[in-house]
Amino acid sequence: MTLIKFIEIMAILVGAFSGFIEARRKRMDLVGVFTVAFITAFGGGTLRDILLDRRPLFWVIHQEYAILIFVLALVASPLIRTLRQIVSERLIVIADAVGLGLFSVAGVSAALAADMPIFIASMMGVITGIFGGVLRDIVCNEVPMVFRDGKPYAICAFLGNWLFLLMGKYGVDPDFALWSSALFISGLRLITWKFDLRMGR
Amino acid sequence: MTLIKFIEIMAILVGAFSGFIEARRKRMDLVGVFTVAFITAFGGGTLRDILLDRRPLFWVIHQEYAILIFVLALVASPLIRTLRQIVSERLIVIADAVGLGLFSVAGVSAALAADMPIFIASMMGVITGIFGGVLRDIVCNEVPMVFRDGKPYAICAFLGNWLFLLMGKYGVDPDFALWSSALFISGLRLITWKFDLRMGR
Amino acid sequence: MTLIKFIEIMAILVGAFSGFIEARRKRMDLVGVFTVAFITAFGGGTLRDILLDRRPLFWVIHQEYAILIFVLALVASPLIRTLRQIVSERLIVIADAVGLGLFSVAGVSAALAADMPIFIASMMGVITGIFGGVLRDIVCNEVPMVFRDGKPYAICAFLGNWLFLLMGKYGVDPDFALWSSALFISGLRLITWKFDLRMGR
Repeated sequence: MTLIKFIEIMAILVGAFSGFIEARRKRMDLVGVFTVAFITAFGGGTLRDILLDRRPLFWVIHQEYAILIFVLALVASPLIRTLRQIVSERLIVIADAVGLGLFSVAGVSAALAADMPIFIASMMGVITGIFGGVLRDIVCNEVPMVFRDGKPYAICAFLGNWLFLLMGKYGVDPDFALWSSALFISGLRLITWKFDLRMGR
Repeated sequence: MTLIKFIEIMAILVGAFSGFIEARRKRMDLVGVFTVAFITAFGGGTLRDILLDRRPLFWVIHQEYAILIFVLALVASPLIRTLRQIVSERLIVIADAVGLGLFSVAGVSAALAADMPIFIASMMGVITGIFGGVLRDIVCNEVPMVFRDGKPYAICAFLGNWLFLLMGKYGVDPDFALWSSALFISGLRLITWKFDLRMGR
Repeated sequence: MTLIKFIEIMAILVGAFSGFIEARRKRMDLVGVFTVAFITAFGGGTLRDILLDRRPLFWVIHQEYAILIFVLALVASPLIRTLRQIVSERLIVIADAVGLGLFSVAGVSAALAADMPIFIASMMGVITGIFGGVLRDIVCNEVPMVFRDGKPYAICAFLGNWLFLLMGKYGVDPDFALWSSALFISGLRLITWKFDLRMGR
């Protein structure tokens, strides 16, 4: 298994896991747990692909990820309390930050490949990174957390996306640009989390 | 009028009717009543078609259904209390179960026709069957009922969709497969409703 | 700058402004304020284009509007209380009515250009006019205001759209039809607002 595949799976699992937790907190049943986990893991990329009119969707090509979440929902649902104790918050935040970086930059890439103008591409990257959680919160009947807690999350993605776009403009090697921008986003997210930085309102 | 046309209209009317009731319960006005009824009746199929990139949408080809719901919203809105007394809960549940069966299997069919892998096709069937109600509940600012009441509904659709897929794999006549799977879903839904079965959480 | 361009920008700004206010009322941070403003300004047209499968989206072609809202979110967020005092409610309602008229008729036009049947085209016009606000309210975790306050808003758009369609059918000059229908919608909205007319429930 390549490194990128491993990170991808980790990021999807983290998305699904945050969906599990939120769905259980709302006392949802198995159907709800699976659906919310699925929406959290794939919602951002799906919305981006609908806006860009890209098909087939990511989870359609890789149905193994959908099956994985389905099996996990069956297994994890009764174990969720135990799981939350085994998996520390630190681990979740780290994996989530890695996912945010990777998915955001991948979103920008996809938008550029679809000939989007650059500001729109930077937004598509943010949408890919954060809208899984936004849709999760809408389905769970909450005001989306990323819009109200004042912690830099979308903004880390936004800044890293522009780093990626600038490196592209100045002819930096695409692979290096992608990895370093993703790393920048993940790192920035982890630093702001570590020091509990807030944006003013 | 053919039988399938009749069932289709019944299923749409039942969807719209559940939208009427929910919209009135939320004290919505005429615009809200029509919109929520429309979303409940066509939301599942519309989301499936957007995910599959199929156009034109069902209600665009059959604008008579949209007009029907529009007229009903005008007429039914003042009569909703009377209507709820005339139409027994039993009748609603039966018509809804018939609609769930028919629409779920039709959703699987549409997904297979669009070359989806089979697990995705089974999910598209469930989406077609249940997301009208999910979108209704989101617009009405509720946690979707199908995710939280623990009654087998999406699961009946899911099992029936796999019956349909298995029959397809083993070369059963497509028409027979479609009708018997739809019947299986409707029957399973009615049996679990009759005996008030619940899933564990 | 042509008149239509000026009205378009005004309408988008009014949409964004109502998003700002609602997002602040919900105590959202900068990311929330921008996103909700953006969804309010472009949500209706985006949903219409997704339903019609039209690409590229309006705000993708005109990324300057997205940038404008971004800059305004940065600037306006701390000034929102002052802004609400400077900008009178009357001015907001007038600009919003102008936007409703213009966008609704433009939505019908787009739907006709995509060969939609006429009832569907009239609905697409209403969707274009009102769904920005509907999506704003869903993200802000409210029952959409346009569905519950009983004030004629969607209905003004609906009637004007039919005026536009009828004029098209009877061979009226398209430009005249568009402008007079948009004016009709805006005027009707302002009259019903002025006299505080309500629909029965």
